[in-house]
Amino acid sequence: MNGAESLARTLTGAGVEVCFANPGTSEMHFVAALDRVEGLRCVLGLFEGVVTGAADGYARMAEKPASTLLHLGPGLANGLANVHNARRANTPMVNIVGDHATYHKEYDAPLTSDVEGVARPFSDWVRTSANSRSVARDGAAAVAAALAPPGRISTLILPADASWEEADGPAPLPAVEARAAVAPETIASAAQALRSGEPTVLFLSGPALREPGLTLVGRIAASTGARLVAQTLNARVERGAGRVGVEFLPYPVDEALATLAGTSRLLLVGAKAPVAFFAYPGKPSALSPQQCEVRTLAAPGEDVVGALEALADELEARQAASLQVLETPAPGGGPVGFDTAGAAVAALLPEGAIVVDEALTGASAFLSRTRGAAPHDYLQVTGGAIGIGLPLATGAAIACPDRKVVCLQADGSAMYTVQALWTQAREGLDVTTVILDNRSYAILKGELANVGAANAGQKAHDMMELDRPALDWVAMARSMGVEAGRAATVEEFSRQLDGGLRSQGPYLIDLVL
Amino acid sequence: MNGAESLARTLTGAGVEVCFANPGTSEMHFVAALDRVEGLRCVLGLFEGVVTGAADGYARMAEKPASTLLHLGPGLANGLANVHNARRANTPMVNIVGDHATYHKEYDAPLTSDVEGVARPFSDWVRTSANSRSVARDGAAAVAAALAPPGRISTLILPADASWEEADGPAPLPAVEARAAVAPETIASAAQALRSGEPTVLFLSGPALREPGLTLVGRIAASTGARLVAQTLNARVERGAGRVGVEFLPYPVDEALATLAGTSRLLLVGAKAPVAFFAYPGKPSALSPQQCEVRTLAAPGEDVVGALEALADELEARQAASLQVLETPAPGGGPVGFDTAGAAVAALLPEGAIVVDEALTGASAFLSRTRGAAPHDYLQVTGGAIGIGLPLATGAAIACPDRKVVCLQADGSAMYTVQALWTQAREGLDVTTVILDNRSYAILKGELANVGAANAGQKAHDMMELDRPALDWVAMARSMGVEAGRAATVEEFSRQLDGGLRSQGPYLIDLVL
Repeated sequence: MNGAESLARTLTGAGVEVCFANPGTSEMHFVAALDRVEGLRCVLGLFEGVVTGAADGYARMAEKPASTLLHLGPGLANGLANVHNARRANTPMVNIVGDHATYHKEYDAPLTSDVEGVARPFSDWVRTSANSRSVARDGAAAVAAALAPPGRISTLILPADASWEEADGPAPLPAVEARAAVAPETIASAAQALRSGEPTVLFLSGPALREPGLTLVGRIAASTGARLVAQTLNARVERGAGRVGVEFLPYPVDEALATLAGTSRLLLVGAKAPVAFFAYPGKPSALSPQQCEVRTLAAPGEDVVGALEALADELEARQAASLQVLETPAPGGGPVGFDTAGAAVAALLPEGAIVVDEALTGASAFLSRTRGAAPHDYLQVTGGAIGIGLPLATGAAIACPDRKVVCLQADGSAMYTVQALWTQAREGLDVTTVILDNRSYAILKGELANVGAANAGQKAHDMMELDRPALDWVAMARSMGVEAGRAATVEEFSRQLDGGLRSQGPYLIDLVL
Repeated sequence: MNGAESLARTLTGAGVEVCFANPGTSEMHFVAALDRVEGLRCVLGLFEGVVTGAADGYARMAEKPASTLLHLGPGLANGLANVHNARRANTPMVNIVGDHATYHKEYDAPLTSDVEGVARPFSDWVRTSANSRSVARDGAAAVAAALAPPGRISTLILPADASWEEADGPAPLPAVEARAAVAPETIASAAQALRSGEPTVLFLSGPALREPGLTLVGRIAASTGARLVAQTLNARVERGAGRVGVEFLPYPVDEALATLAGTSRLLLVGAKAPVAFFAYPGKPSALSPQQCEVRTLAAPGEDVVGALEALADELEARQAASLQVLETPAPGGGPVGFDTAGAAVAALLPEGAIVVDEALTGASAFLSRTRGAAPHDYLQVTGGAIGIGLPLATGAAIACPDRKVVCLQADGSAMYTVQALWTQAREGLDVTTVILDNRSYAILKGELANVGAANAGQKAHDMMELDRPALDWVAMARSMGVEAGRAATVEEFSRQLDGGLRSQGPYLIDLVL
């Protein structure tokens, strides 16, 4: 068995079941090993940003480590923006990056680059295998590092000769670091704060936004009157009818400040302290009120659920959580906007759906309108690097073939990784994509004013308009084998969405706003 | 004037005329400044790989520094693969990358990353502006660093507050490093080697493949019997009828070895020593024969043309260079292949055309068939990072609005930066794209065998097949506003190519192989 095969067997032994890939020459031995190794499904993406974004979506839903196969420094670079998002989602991800044979590096062939240097800014763990006999051990270490709490990015660089030379066989997964328990005094002081009766916010992310964490925060809120506010962007939120409802901290600074105004204590539960997404002249970076005390109940990598259990016990929080009722207001009719589209989604969303949100300017309307929809999972752009929606939906559908995926996708962002549609067609994935077609980088128009540059002229505005020419999303989808339709009214959108959700395989709706 | 405007004015003062851009919130002040600064054209790309690849194509043809505007670490990362290609092309390029305001970095907002770390592996010069008053000076230094021979990559990171705070005004371009002269003894010893009568190759790249270098190497070859062999991949080659013809070192190792077999002396003229693109088991990395003496006449950053003038003088090389005759063999008819498509291109290529070659498996056929076509410029994938063809053609067309651009584009690679078609439509660029539609990563099929993994099975081959589903390139082009047609025969291809070349604006031909 060669190094590549020893790595593939190590990965499957460590619980890696899918490899999202865009391989090249230096990865051919790994690709060839796929046919000799049972249990490692390989999914091709036609661009590396698709590969890494899909791996993230897969891992968020499968709760198994994601793996990718990428081609040297430039191939890795192409995938980094969505690795950034995955890192901010605390997704356990193992990137396998082929490189030139060890003895070939000194020749500085055209594709040569400092692959470790490329990996480092977006990876928590980086290693280059020295030779074929170390590859299996390195691969096992990479998976263990990725699984370390709260979920990390490992990048293993695999020189071509380490792939093709003889190896000893797979290596076992080393012990994986456990989530650290939260100290009893932290629990006690959090309980004291909550008992004080002062306006308190539980600021939530990670496991606090999914069961069993969600019911625990719901019980604590019901018993103490604390408000439940989720981080603006989260890896995965369980929400909808029958679940504990939480507010989301809005993206616009002024709205965020208003949401937290009057809060005396803010308790971080798997979240980091609330900060502005960007800096704006004359506005604060920290979003909690100045006099508000911010303390951590459980950091993202700590035992968030254990801490919530202990806190609920300490508080004797036995009162049942208040649950969201099923509530899907009629979307109405006529020309479609974000609010009516959101209502239409809420009305038609099947139970257990996965909603991917890269709606950007439309996000708050969709969040608000789907609050009382059938229970679903909600996946967001955790790192703010646009171009993850279509890949994220792709990976989520690979992870959950029995669930429907709805992707709420801004048009400008969709173009970054539009190649994901092809993978959806190839794999026959049940993804219904809604392109929010406003023919502009609408969010930037607002931002131009927010940063105090509102007096800009035509040349500046040309950088935000996508209407010259308008993209034909129906043709775009069909060019990659995805059936598609166009909707400009609520009625037509509802009809198309219903059809998309009922059909097998991918469907795209060009929602003309 | 704020920092952003001082930078824009500094750039135009330093000879930067076009900025290829995909901006975000942190770049809004630079975007707003565009309307107040004359002479800086801004070209929008819908993905950063388009932006950087177009900047490269522009600079290769305009012989002016290229500039880009990118959004934080992930935006820069998206553009890095084509920055890699630009670096290998010795393209002078200035990347302006917005970042969070200096005081906002410590809050670790979602889009925060180590932007300098992201830039470093593919940049020769990296700096973060400390404040608005240093921005102009930093911008001028960035341009000077990019213009240092042989052409380098500068990345200037611009914190948002350095953009929006008050600045003093533009800064002048500092003195730009000149190309170092080659020592007289190097010239003399090269002349001695050439006079020896032993089989000698002038191994060429950079200025040696364009006038006046090309005529000089032609005269030296005519006088000494030396062979002229170009590097496999070059930034820009002037070739075709009436010009000094050169061989290209083939990409496949065995063919490259055969090309250089029997060579006693290899003289590097603006090129690096010939090496294999990848390592293959049992094959050498260095491509010159073992007993061959390799010496440098002029390194890529030295005064290549001056060295050739001195060498021609030393050799009294007055014999006229042998020139390529106009020779366009009839393409024939029937089903189209690389050779017949190449012949059709040669027959129809207008004088002064710019040919962009990301044909990969088809490249050698096109190179061979277009040898005697009308004189044209030939641009290649210098760094081997695929996904540059469509952007490179876009940038070349921006640089040379009066010339026709023909882009020979492999289908798999086209998908990496397919968004470039939209910029072609938006800017009305005269680019005729020929998609070499074989519905596979054909080059990898050969590489699978080359690396000794030919016994691979179905799962491996699935990673190289793009036919499930086949991409509809006509629909793809039209979805982005580019008119398109399909051709499967030589006659139809010739008809479409002729139409594309005669029309104004972009046209795409899906060449079904």
